[in-house]
Amino acid sequence: MQSISIGPQPKSVSTIAIMMNEPASPTEAAIAATPEHRLKDELDIVIPTIRNLDFLEMWRPFFQPYHLIIVQDGDPSRTIKVPNGFDYELYNRNDINRILGPRASCISFKDSACRCFGYMVSRKKYIFTIDDDCFVAKDPTGKAINALEQHIKNLLSPSAPFFFNTLYDPFADGADFVRGYPFSLREGVPTAVSHGLWLNIPDYDAPTQLVKPLERNTRYVDAVLSIPKGTLFPMCGMNLAFDRHLIGPAMYFGLMGEGQPIGRYDDMWAGWCIKVICDHLGLGVKTGLPYIYHSKASNPFVNLRKEYKGIYWQEEIIPFFQQIVLPKDCTTVQKCYVHLAKQVKEKLARIDPYFDKLAEAMVTWIQAWDELNPSAAALSNGKKG
Amino acid sequence: MQSISIGPQPKSVSTIAIMMNEPASPTEAAIAATPEHRLKDELDIVIPTIRNLDFLEMWRPFFQPYHLIIVQDGDPSRTIKVPNGFDYELYNRNDINRILGPRASCISFKDSACRCFGYMVSRKKYIFTIDDDCFVAKDPTGKAINALEQHIKNLLSPSAPFFFNTLYDPFADGADFVRGYPFSLREGVPTAVSHGLWLNIPDYDAPTQLVKPLERNTRYVDAVLSIPKGTLFPMCGMNLAFDRHLIGPAMYFGLMGEGQPIGRYDDMWAGWCIKVICDHLGLGVKTGLPYIYHSKASNPFVNLRKEYKGIYWQEEIIPFFQQIVLPKDCTTVQKCYVHLAKQVKEKLARIDPYFDKLAEAMVTWIQAWDELNPSAAALSNGKKG
Repeated sequence: MQSISIGPQPKSVSTIAIMMNEPASPTEAAIAATPEHRLKDELDIVIPTIRNLDFLEMWRPFFQPYHLIIVQDGDPSRTIKVPNGFDYELYNRNDINRILGPRASCISFKDSACRCFGYMVSRKKYIFTIDDDCFVAKDPTGKAINALEQHIKNLLSPSAPFFFNTLYDPFADGADFVRGYPFSLREGVPTAVSHGLWLNIPDYDAPTQLVKPLERNTRYVDAVLSIPKGTLFPMCGMNLAFDRHLIGPAMYFGLMGEGQPIGRYDDMWAGWCIKVICDHLGLGVKTGLPYIYHSKASNPFVNLRKEYKGIYWQEEIIPFFQQIVLPKDCTTVQKCYVHLAKQVKEKLARIDPYFDKLAEAMVTWIQAWDELNPSAAALSNGKKG
Repeated sequence: MQSISIGPQPKSVSTIAIMMNEPASPTEAAIAATPEHRLKDELDIVIPTIRNLDFLEMWRPFFQPYHLIIVQDGDPSRTIKVPNGFDYELYNRNDINRILGPRASCISFKDSACRCFGYMVSRKKYIFTIDDDCFVAKDPTGKAINALEQHIKNLLSPSAPFFFNTLYDPFADGADFVRGYPFSLREGVPTAVSHGLWLNIPDYDAPTQLVKPLERNTRYVDAVLSIPKGTLFPMCGMNLAFDRHLIGPAMYFGLMGEGQPIGRYDDMWAGWCIKVICDHLGLGVKTGLPYIYHSKASNPFVNLRKEYKGIYWQEEIIPFFQQIVLPKDCTTVQKCYVHLAKQVKEKLARIDPYFDKLAEAMVTWIQAWDELNPSAAALSNGKKG
């Protein structure tokens, strides 16, 4: 229908909802791309995959100047095609086994949890990790969202986890701390983790997927917020960035997939661990913007099989993490993490022998991390790197 | 400029910002008003004021079916004009003194803290309180926002304060709890308080007003969230709703204004008190939607004079509230509040003798509340009302 309008027209809520329900086209993404690519020499993009990375075409204007670390899951003899022009290194299972030797046992197989190997081999300060079914989303004005740029903003500005700011991120443009926010807390703390969200397919568990198969997330919430100290959250690994130097060794995605009794709890596990460690070390965790467009719902029946143990185990695991107190002498992420592993063995192994294995894998992960990151390990042990 | 468009046009961020920077006109409000006025016999609107209530004209389509309680501050001989067609009761200082007798000392004079007298004399389950410089805001589509309707939605749906939901309010349309949210916590807890926000003039303290005189809030964040258990927040009284039966006796706005060393901390004080009591009793506090349009920045120099003691006192008051533990036998709001008053006397009176007076006023407030609300008082004491 053709209409004549004078100036900008109000848009109905349903129009905005429809607009949000389509990813940006590569052209829209190209138009939105800024010439500036911040931190391009200090950030790696980690992608776990089992297929050709055609999805990178859409991300080209935003990602091309960055280095990619691709962790190939499943059959290592398969060739993964990466679009031309990207700078990347690719690791398959053979590479992981060769590099880590017996310690490779801590890296999951046939599960996107394998992505954490990429965090370990990176030499950069920052990591952005994204799933290969995630596309460029559009904001309510129709503009393609540069997710990476927003994550970088989130990571480079402080967090405020000790008191809630009702106008959300006080460091966003046009915002500040509101009346009644203690001035002593306005400096904030360094941000270790930036957790981004998803338009279109929401990150639901299998039961919710089964009950609401058609539900789509069309609500664009223009906010970033610090998750308060003492509060846990369900961290999703689909669209996540973090500061390796601040929290890297705790970003272990656990034992999932082949040979394990559980799947789809890799990111949740990491989320619980990083949050209690950030709270202990005085670091911030943000959630909210940026959105990516999540294109494809995974199969709820397959998910149910992977998840069902997690669904009842989490009823005990979450209280365990809510009650944990890390001792004062845990002054580095590594020390915190090894202490956590001990507590997992002591307190969670009675749920299932799996947690014994997981606790051991947590220690192996730290050993492998320190071996591949010797200067960080030396710092963590109080020596000069 | 005239333009020809086919279908809806994308709107630029700056256009949305401009649109958000104007209140809705009475016509727009009338168009947006729904024929349904939920809880109209169970909710009172409390308005503290010193002037004629012309601002009600704009709210007419939303407020007219509700009962208003107007608390006239300042000179009681002055006549406050209320637009025709509203159902209201009005109390001036003479009325307050007559009704409360010597206990009237707990109600502030020459400060909007006097509004809490309205909470006490109400006979309804729900209260919505709003300042007389707040107008109807518009959402990003240009539609007038029925703030009261959103508050009612917030109060009638549960809160989820024990774990953070990354897609915000799980009870909103098209939303739910995300993967990893414990199923045992999805029932939520009853919501006691709904804290709404403000477009245009943000609720800044005097120093921030002085530093950023031109800052306007144009960011419409389409979210409601439960403030996590254990986290305090700066509660603003400008646009606030609550369940009197669940939390009313703790909604005391303290001693401010004439004869007191402090102002502009009335709502903050109430916010700290209600949050620790809600946390203790397992009740929820939400913040976010609805927005109102806050029209006029108050004078930052006057504000500075009222606030400056609060600005350094809050550095000690907030840690006091963060550390407080209410005993298990505090099973009613009244008992919690009287316990809090004792703690204020013990722990805060060393900051300034003001806190001695405040602690006594807190007890007087509860006595007055129980006198005016005898059945609630009987329930609180374990007798049948």
